[in-house]
Amino acid sequence: MSVEGPAAPVPADNVLDWLDVEAEKRAQAGLVRRLRPRAAAATELDLAGNDYLGLARDKRVAGAAAAAALKWGAGSTGSRLVTGSTELHAELEQELARFCGTQAALVFSSGFTANLGAVTTLSGRESAIVTDASIHASLIEGCRLSRADIAAVAHNDPSAVAHALRTRRHKRALVVTDSVFSVDGDKADLTALNNACRETGAAMLVDDAHGLGVLGDGGKGAVHEAGLNAAPDVVTTVTLSKALGAQGGAVLGPRRVIRHLTETARSFIFDTALAPASAAAALTALRVLVEEPQRAERAREITATMAERFAAAGLPTSTPEAAVLAVRAPFPDDAVAWAARCAERGVRVGCFRPPSVPDGISRLRLTANAGLTDAEVEQAIQVVTETAPAAS
Amino acid sequence: MSVEGPAAPVPADNVLDWLDVEAEKRAQAGLVRRLRPRAAAATELDLAGNDYLGLARDKRVAGAAAAAALKWGAGSTGSRLVTGSTELHAELEQELARFCGTQAALVFSSGFTANLGAVTTLSGRESAIVTDASIHASLIEGCRLSRADIAAVAHNDPSAVAHALRTRRHKRALVVTDSVFSVDGDKADLTALNNACRETGAAMLVDDAHGLGVLGDGGKGAVHEAGLNAAPDVVTTVTLSKALGAQGGAVLGPRRVIRHLTETARSFIFDTALAPASAAAALTALRVLVEEPQRAERAREITATMAERFAAAGLPTSTPEAAVLAVRAPFPDDAVAWAARCAERGVRVGCFRPPSVPDGISRLRLTANAGLTDAEVEQAIQVVTETAPAAS
Ligand SMILES: Cc1ncc(COP(=O)(O)O)c(C=O)c1O
Ligand SMILES: Cc1ncc(COP(=O)(O)O)c(C=O)c1O
Repeated sequence: MSVEGPAAPVPADNVLDWLDVEAEKRAQAGLVRRLRPRAAAATELDLAGNDYLGLARDKRVAGAAAAAALKWGAGSTGSRLVTGSTELHAELEQELARFCGTQAALVFSSGFTANLGAVTTLSGRESAIVTDASIHASLIEGCRLSRADIAAVAHNDPSAVAHALRTRRHKRALVVTDSVFSVDGDKADLTALNNACRETGAAMLVDDAHGLGVLGDGGKGAVHEAGLNAAPDVVTTVTLSKALGAQGGAVLGPRRVIRHLTETARSFIFDTALAPASAAAALTALRVLVEEPQRAERAREITATMAERFAAAGLPTSTPEAAVLAVRAPFPDDAVAWAARCAERGVRVGCFRPPSVPDGISRLRLTANAGLTDAEVEQAIQVVTETAPAAS
Repeated sequence: MSVEGPAAPVPADNVLDWLDVEAEKRAQAGLVRRLRPRAAAATELDLAGNDYLGLARDKRVAGAAAAAALKWGAGSTGSRLVTGSTELHAELEQELARFCGTQAALVFSSGFTANLGAVTTLSGRESAIVTDASIHASLIEGCRLSRADIAAVAHNDPSAVAHALRTRRHKRALVVTDSVFSVDGDKADLTALNNACRETGAAMLVDDAHGLGVLGDGGKGAVHEAGLNAAPDVVTTVTLSKALGAQGGAVLGPRRVIRHLTETARSFIFDTALAPASAAAALTALRVLVEEPQRAERAREITATMAERFAAAGLPTSTPEAAVLAVRAPFPDDAVAWAARCAERGVRVGCFRPPSVPDGISRLRLTANAGLTDAEVEQAIQVVTETAPAAS
């Protein structure tokens, strides 16, 4: 196909015919995806969203978003380096850094672009990147953009990381990992990974998207929990779109890292700054969390209860360590049908299939929301258990 | 450097010392960048932002953002494919597609991620991409991620594009261009580019970030102006963060393209959906534009007046065709000092230096805002002219 060349001109109508061929292949494989827009009034129990602390619709958080839109305008009007940085962004950065215990922070328009910026600017052509095989897609995209030599080692295997670091040809190296893996909710061993880094002079980038607000003292995150927040060789990315109930992302770390990103990260420089409403919402959510640290604990407790009960019911359940857990389904179609049965009975669950899962295994992904009552958790457990496919 | 290996363990404190070396190099080259957070009350005339129609702080637009945050919550809580799609997102997609005259639209969390998604999913390993050398950074990142063979040809040279298309080895090809180039504000010849595509069966992706709201009938954009909005071989990306005064991005085009992106674009699938407040703001801005199409014309008129007066004053000015124009400065330091003199006299202008400019030439970047009065435009012109460096 790649050597046929453009000899016979294709009519304009047919230039994109290959998209239909691809769509048919996905349909055959049970991988069709449809958007299902939801209404404002929630009618289902939500075990699919990433609003782990129940803050997205908290009156204080939503109210802060509304007030900021009126005060600052709907958009930030430009790149952070031109007109997009408001005092609100600066305040959010200060409080994020203080909360997580890092020297400084830099806010991006999303966790996705924060990861692109962090990975690309902390590596580069003459460096090695060693990653866990199950890192988030946005980190993978960052690796691909970095031009570094990439070694993806087995999931959760610090000794494989250490080996890759020791045998690298490059002076400079970066270890890249999620703190809590987004599909199964299991944790990386940050201490072991950092030890491997220190042994060979590598730096470490931890995506704490699912740790912030859930793990560590009062939700300070997995990096804080591991005592690495102030380490000179560790950089953390977070998202404002999960536990903090807003939108956006941030990179946290030593001041010189933040300066480096400000001046060189393409996904920072060439992107419009986060909307004031989202910045204000994240800032207020952070303050609520400081005042109500029990929300973090409640989220973990709900996940642990669900996992225990699913395992007792014989479902192939992951061992969740934060607010995410997964239950496996034999095939993509089973997962889709299972999720549909849950929805019919009023429980919304996530359905993850290839290519959204690193290992090709389909599963339901369930999340905790600290706002759920015990009765609601109980109801959710029953629905998921009773609708499980026979074979699983 | 790349073959030294990790022999001598570096103390953790020194692992990131190379960042300081890089910072020093940038300082020597006059390329330091600092964030300057602004206050809520504007004290300067803004000729730096991308709020071309003056809608970011429009009461209707900001009010819609505020109302949406209260009604829908501060965040969307998940990926568009899980819990992130609200009826608000669907409505915005319908109205965007109707306004721009395309079959369908898909909303992303930013113009940046929309471009990543569009470029990567419309090309791929066995295809060729032919781009203008001055395309936006987000399109370049998309090209790098695509694994396609990339040919970047001279700026604004459709015959070079045609040549690259004719001599390609690949069956499938995609031409990628900005409609209005972000630094100088000049337009691509979309008709000539599309003719080149049709001759050889290539598809075309146009980033209309700076055309939407400014060019074409009532601001329908450059693709509509060129009569290509309904073409089966043309895909358009837009941002919601410039003329529409909000945040976010979208891809517009044939229904099968939108389906393809929904099911395969990694920057769509693995990213939290746009916050409801931003979606509502963009939707309301679009409706305001439909009712007040003269805003588009006013933005163009302001840019044309500025360009004429700068040229008359002997400043090396670009030929702007939308709401952006650039005036060159001899060296990075001159551009910084010039922008600072403008700021001292109450006019905020953009200062673009390497690596933010494709050709390495530093300049002031000035934008129109339809909300400016004639007297304000006059004041801005005088300040920029009177503070110009002697050598330019
Ligand atoms: C581990 C991880 N990192 C990064 C992201 C991206 O963050 P955002 O959705 O805020 O762009 C996500 C989820 O979307 C994630 O799960
Ligand atoms: C031409 C062009 N495309 C895309 C983008 C990215 O859009 P956004 O800032 O909404 O991410 C920008 C500016 O930021 C741009 O100028």
